[in-house]
Amino acid sequence: MDTAGKTITCRAAIAWKEKSPLKIEEVQVEPPKSGEVRIKMASTGICGTDDHVLKGDLSMKYPLIPGHEGAGIVESVGDGVCSVKPGDKVLTLIVPQCGECDACLHCLGNFCDKQDILPCSGVMMDGTSRFSYRGQTVYHSFRTSTFTEYTVVPEFAVVKIDDAAPLDKVCLISCGVPTGYGAAVNSAKVTPGSTCVVFGLGGVGSAIVMGCKASGASRIIGVDINEQKFCRARALGVTDCLNPTKLQKPVQEVVMEMTGVGANFAFEAIGKIETMLAAWNSCNNSYGVCLIVGVAPVNTQLCLQAVSIVSGKTLKGVCLGDYKTKDCIPQLVTDYLQNKINIDPLVTHQLPFNELHKAMKLYYKGKTIRCVLLF
Amino acid sequence: MDTAGKTITCRAAIAWKEKSPLKIEEVQVEPPKSGEVRIKMASTGICGTDDHVLKGDLSMKYPLIPGHEGAGIVESVGDGVCSVKPGDKVLTLIVPQCGECDACLHCLGNFCDKQDILPCSGVMMDGTSRFSYRGQTVYHSFRTSTFTEYTVVPEFAVVKIDDAAPLDKVCLISCGVPTGYGAAVNSAKVTPGSTCVVFGLGGVGSAIVMGCKASGASRIIGVDINEQKFCRARALGVTDCLNPTKLQKPVQEVVMEMTGVGANFAFEAIGKIETMLAAWNSCNNSYGVCLIVGVAPVNTQLCLQAVSIVSGKTLKGVCLGDYKTKDCIPQLVTDYLQNKINIDPLVTHQLPFNELHKAMKLYYKGKTIRCVLLF
Repeated sequence: MDTAGKTITCRAAIAWKEKSPLKIEEVQVEPPKSGEVRIKMASTGICGTDDHVLKGDLSMKYPLIPGHEGAGIVESVGDGVCSVKPGDKVLTLIVPQCGECDACLHCLGNFCDKQDILPCSGVMMDGTSRFSYRGQTVYHSFRTSTFTEYTVVPEFAVVKIDDAAPLDKVCLISCGVPTGYGAAVNSAKVTPGSTCVVFGLGGVGSAIVMGCKASGASRIIGVDINEQKFCRARALGVTDCLNPTKLQKPVQEVVMEMTGVGANFAFEAIGKIETMLAAWNSCNNSYGVCLIVGVAPVNTQLCLQAVSIVSGKTLKGVCLGDYKTKDCIPQLVTDYLQNKINIDPLVTHQLPFNELHKAMKLYYKGKTIRCVLLF
Repeated sequence: MDTAGKTITCRAAIAWKEKSPLKIEEVQVEPPKSGEVRIKMASTGICGTDDHVLKGDLSMKYPLIPGHEGAGIVESVGDGVCSVKPGDKVLTLIVPQCGECDACLHCLGNFCDKQDILPCSGVMMDGTSRFSYRGQTVYHSFRTSTFTEYTVVPEFAVVKIDDAAPLDKVCLISCGVPTGYGAAVNSAKVTPGSTCVVFGLGGVGSAIVMGCKASGASRIIGVDINEQKFCRARALGVTDCLNPTKLQKPVQEVVMEMTGVGANFAFEAIGKIETMLAAWNSCNNSYGVCLIVGVAPVNTQLCLQAVSIVSGKTLKGVCLGDYKTKDCIPQLVTDYLQNKINIDPLVTHQLPFNELHKAMKLYYKGKTIRCVLLF
């Protein structure tokens, strides 16, 4: 059945308001307008940032369809779209690359002006949504909204990937893998023989560990309050596991004692101010680099002791591994197909979309690195 | 008269307690012990960090002899000293290079373990002072104490420079010049065509401007509340001058409007939390780099909005331009002698040591970039 140009009725998960459980509902998805792409979703990861959305940590408009770490096949395209066509395998891009703004044109940085994260408008570029429920507007999240059988995204927020890519896994390369792996290999440029400490051993933290390992780090200290994650983390390259709740002193002091001089590189992949501070204070005070990968709630502040700055260390925010997404994400997929990076250990669970609640339960219980929902 | 091995009585400026005027007194300076060097001072700059000491912003022991930006001639050396000998022209090093600690051995960073800034012990490595006043101990500041006709420093805090160096000027290359110039060319690695903003147009800020200019920055915005500094700043390369007290809105908003996208590089050379925040918020939110060169009072905090970190920008503390001081400072002196850098415009005043109070008055009135005291 040709659906192009028609409104599609399908199932989607709706967050009706913050801090309330997701509900799978029947929604209407309008055809893509000019410069937009409608995607038949194949899979989506459940990322910590989605959890921030559900908790209301970010300023969002509700009701909305969450999700951003998606893989699918282009169903139809609006006028003027030329980088993808129906039938293409694609990934959604929470950090888009419009190719025209200052950030896109600069050789460094990737925080494209067209991003819809901070702040999140919840609508497409023309100010309207493509989603509705019984006539009521349902908002987009990050202009990606992947917890739905069909979504509509701007052309700049979608990228074609290799035809051979397995869509039940590569959705992770839409966000979690580049965010973590890129933070280590691209942002920090972790050096051989260095000591790294990674706060948070979920999907992003695990990808950071992979990046540190691939870069030749000789010691990788993993920090998590959930010890279920330690076994998998060790398999990825973590050499020492720390559970802050079981330590007699603050974790940063333990890292300082373990290393003598502090870590070369510290990564925060949780999104909490206290772990950001612990990461900062775990770094070597002269040449240490602290990379903030997690997203802290809006209206919170990271307060650094002034004297801790003087001695030369660096704090760097990292957004999606500093990758120019349209340029770099497809190559990561190809790297995966060519066994240069292995994302398989990160996909610990796969469940059909209608088992969303089970998947969320596994997520909240900390049982997963990534649970992929399949459509 | 051979003074080696004997206590020398000479004039020195003493800060008897915080927030009280310096007094020139007659002090006793003991001979250097093992690993120490006694220097007949030729000149010293008056740096903002000395003012922090006088105001009590740093934790110091009083009474003390302030000053760290010094040039002189070695009078005598203690046992085991081999890198300098009597008669050598030398600079004092507030950030030393012991060559043995982790920071010295690492390829990056320069915050040598033997530094005596944070915290400041006020004494030499054996726990005692070489200074006294009528039998009462007078403490060292930063193990440099250059506001005195003779000082004693550890060997790792002094470096031999070119015999042709004019001692009435090159004291600036002990601290102010490398701190500022190095922050631009060595720490930030300012790129050609970039936009820079410099908060504070004193000695360090002026040296930053010189470094930005030398690196090919196409726009250099200088910020100071003292408009007397604008003319000299323009001569060094500042293209736009801003006086925050005369603006209708916060200076970071003005910088954002002027640049459209924020500065590539923002430098803070004052040591105040509010100007550090303004510098951070003047940076491009994706690829901007904020360099904290000034030293804020202990027990203060720099509080960054969490969302301002996410988009990818970088905050970096810079200590003495990230130079390994013993390795790099002599080359800067040679570069000056070879006209590769020109420090002359920074030396706006030269006064004999006994006109210290006049010099301090000029400093506080903001009349100087650097006033050099001559012994």
